[in-house]
Amino acid sequence: MDESELPRQWYNIQADMINKPLPLLNPATKEPLTAEDLAHIFAAECAKQELDQEHAWIDIPEEVLERYKYYRSTPLVRAYALEKALGTPAHIYFKNESVNPLGSHKINSALPQCYYCKQEGTTNVTTETGAGQWGAALSYAAKAFGLECAVYQVKISMQQKPYRSSIMRTFGATVEGSPSMSTRAGKDIITRDPLHPGSLGTAISEAVELATTTPNCKYTLGSVMSHVSLHQTVIGLEAEKQMEKAGEYPDTIIACFGGGSNFGGLAFPFMRHTLKEGKKIDFIAAEPSSCPKLTHGKFEYDFGDEAGYTPLLPMYTLGHEFKPANIHAGGLRYHGAGTIVSQLLKDGYMRAVDIPQTESFAAGLLFAQTESIIPAPESCHAIAATIREAKKCIETGEEKVILFNLSGHGLIDMTAYDSYLNGDLTDPEFKG
Amino acid sequence: MDESELPRQWYNIQADMINKPLPLLNPATKEPLTAEDLAHIFAAECAKQELDQEHAWIDIPEEVLERYKYYRSTPLVRAYALEKALGTPAHIYFKNESVNPLGSHKINSALPQCYYCKQEGTTNVTTETGAGQWGAALSYAAKAFGLECAVYQVKISMQQKPYRSSIMRTFGATVEGSPSMSTRAGKDIITRDPLHPGSLGTAISEAVELATTTPNCKYTLGSVMSHVSLHQTVIGLEAEKQMEKAGEYPDTIIACFGGGSNFGGLAFPFMRHTLKEGKKIDFIAAEPSSCPKLTHGKFEYDFGDEAGYTPLLPMYTLGHEFKPANIHAGGLRYHGAGTIVSQLLKDGYMRAVDIPQTESFAAGLLFAQTESIIPAPESCHAIAATIREAKKCIETGEEKVILFNLSGHGLIDMTAYDSYLNGDLTDPEFKG
Repeated sequence: MDESELPRQWYNIQADMINKPLPLLNPATKEPLTAEDLAHIFAAECAKQELDQEHAWIDIPEEVLERYKYYRSTPLVRAYALEKALGTPAHIYFKNESVNPLGSHKINSALPQCYYCKQEGTTNVTTETGAGQWGAALSYAAKAFGLECAVYQVKISMQQKPYRSSIMRTFGATVEGSPSMSTRAGKDIITRDPLHPGSLGTAISEAVELATTTPNCKYTLGSVMSHVSLHQTVIGLEAEKQMEKAGEYPDTIIACFGGGSNFGGLAFPFMRHTLKEGKKIDFIAAEPSSCPKLTHGKFEYDFGDEAGYTPLLPMYTLGHEFKPANIHAGGLRYHGAGTIVSQLLKDGYMRAVDIPQTESFAAGLLFAQTESIIPAPESCHAIAATIREAKKCIETGEEKVILFNLSGHGLIDMTAYDSYLNGDLTDPEFKG
Repeated sequence: MDESELPRQWYNIQADMINKPLPLLNPATKEPLTAEDLAHIFAAECAKQELDQEHAWIDIPEEVLERYKYYRSTPLVRAYALEKALGTPAHIYFKNESVNPLGSHKINSALPQCYYCKQEGTTNVTTETGAGQWGAALSYAAKAFGLECAVYQVKISMQQKPYRSSIMRTFGATVEGSPSMSTRAGKDIITRDPLHPGSLGTAISEAVELATTTPNCKYTLGSVMSHVSLHQTVIGLEAEKQMEKAGEYPDTIIACFGGGSNFGGLAFPFMRHTLKEGKKIDFIAAEPSSCPKLTHGKFEYDFGDEAGYTPLLPMYTLGHEFKPANIHAGGLRYHGAGTIVSQLLKDGYMRAVDIPQTESFAAGLLFAQTESIIPAPESCHAIAATIREAKKCIETGEEKVILFNLSGHGLIDMTAYDSYLNGDLTDPEFKG
């Protein structure tokens, strides 16, 4: 893909949705939040994007485009060897978001978030991270734009993937395991449950608290929020042009699902043709069986974090106090879904499947051995869902075109593969 | 770089050398070895290439070209941010060999070696590996061509970088720490020194022994040998075309040095213009201060391995029983240098510098923070040497064009960065 063909705008699906996402609410007053309210914790520009239901296309700032060019476009690859190993007539494509120096799609949103913070005079950013993909991306983006960065990493993920905190430190960030003793929220959680392994919900509470109690510090988020999915649409916009060059169009689009950023990033640009032209595409979000908010959650207003610091979000949720099992796909250990995806699922534009942990790693191993890339444990869920669909095509003989998002590589997650290869990996049950 | 511009031949510098490398000798008879002799342990085609001093260009097999296309060409990048951080007038370029799924240049030779083995009816391959970059590449290449693979990994490296053995296992290889109890050579070493941390020399002994005692099994090597450097010349051949597109020509070419494969891969295609047209380029091999065969070794016949199983090689060596310090750059912990480089150094076509471990990581950290890529500990030596040269340009005001090889990324080596960031890293002394 030529540099001149790179997207210069993000796609804001909210503008084209028939039923718009319900408003975020102030938990005290139950009043809808304004961009001004959100700008207390987020960069003002991100707050504006979050609530924008008018403009379908939003310009990518030049300075962000410059940084995108370091690694974009990412390859669209046909997985011939995987197809052959499965014996499927399906055509399997994947968008390879693992090929930037940070190793996942997260950098696509870390760069604009840090850019806007810098533009607005912010000096410090903070965030939560699960597996550490988002934290690593933010650490790098903060360094690139000259900001200080502090990351709360989910404690169990920090233990499972110690290299990710090393990567963040290498890029100059401060990293703290969550729940920690450095915030009120963290202390409260530890007091209740000294061995709490942490979750994205606990880490968000801590980062939000740090942002609101530190001068000139903004909070950033790697998923869930609508402005994050907006930034990630570069994935789908590129993929659309690349599929066109390949002379095919996807029947099925699959991505793993934590809060929705890599799913939305790939799916939304294609879904605009469903919303506007009635194009039929089977959109599938692949979530872990042990943390299944889309397949087993309720659509209701809930907090985005464990402590209840965030606005109330209208979403599919397992409850903000839900404690996810210690699966290796740390980026999927979150109780809720982004508001856009929640509305789209409710309205029947997409569906979700839940994948047991061992099935995800069996899929990841087959993918590695055929396509030579070791996938992130999160991405393994998308691969497993892809394999399920490709196997159906063996039955039906259909030459379906399946496109999935390889959101990241698994080189920092090798203990998970070890555990799988040693036969130690379990399938934690969902206790709803 | 367009697919049609990819090199279709490797460059064999032996054909253009004025003083050819001295022959490899049979240690018992002191007679020069023939390709037939070498074919007992190596693939016959590799053995032939090893001794070829006639043909400057050797066709890359179609099946290997197909696999090269998965990840080649690799980017040539101008390190603007590093230049700016240093305040140097030098133009710094790097060839980024870290961007394939295995993370280092080693895959360039793993693919042809496995291809030739398969063609010749071999079913099993074995090798040694230090940091594990070569072992990972061979594991993948063996899987790609349907061969069984067994790897002896240097014990200290296995402990320092446990994820690399997981990667090899993920690609279906068997991995054993060396010295091990599974070979005569390993047992002898452990008997003499139960806590021997291993070295490339010990692991080579074990792999050679396995190859010679297992039916239908060939030994493969990731560096040192001339046919390995031959395969790696795709790096320099691409870089030459890419520099031309950038409108510049290197005054200085730098690569880290273990056995010579990434150095030769980048340098030899440029050096042919020195050999044939008298072009002046400053070729610099960067080796660790604690294992300095080029700067402190002797040019003499020596064994390639600890146990003395290999032919005698004419090379700069610290002695085959030299026990390298436990530095993190496992790929540079080798007592000898390839025969081609040894001859070129002796004849004054290149020079070498030795880099203390802490200087290498300081350079790697600066590179990561400016260029966003965390370099392998081996590659950090090339970066440190580059920074030394770039700083000289500040003094002289020269706008020198420096090209170095980023041979691999350091994502699997984060314990080394942790150690550096914690202030625990030492500079082991060379005890010659």
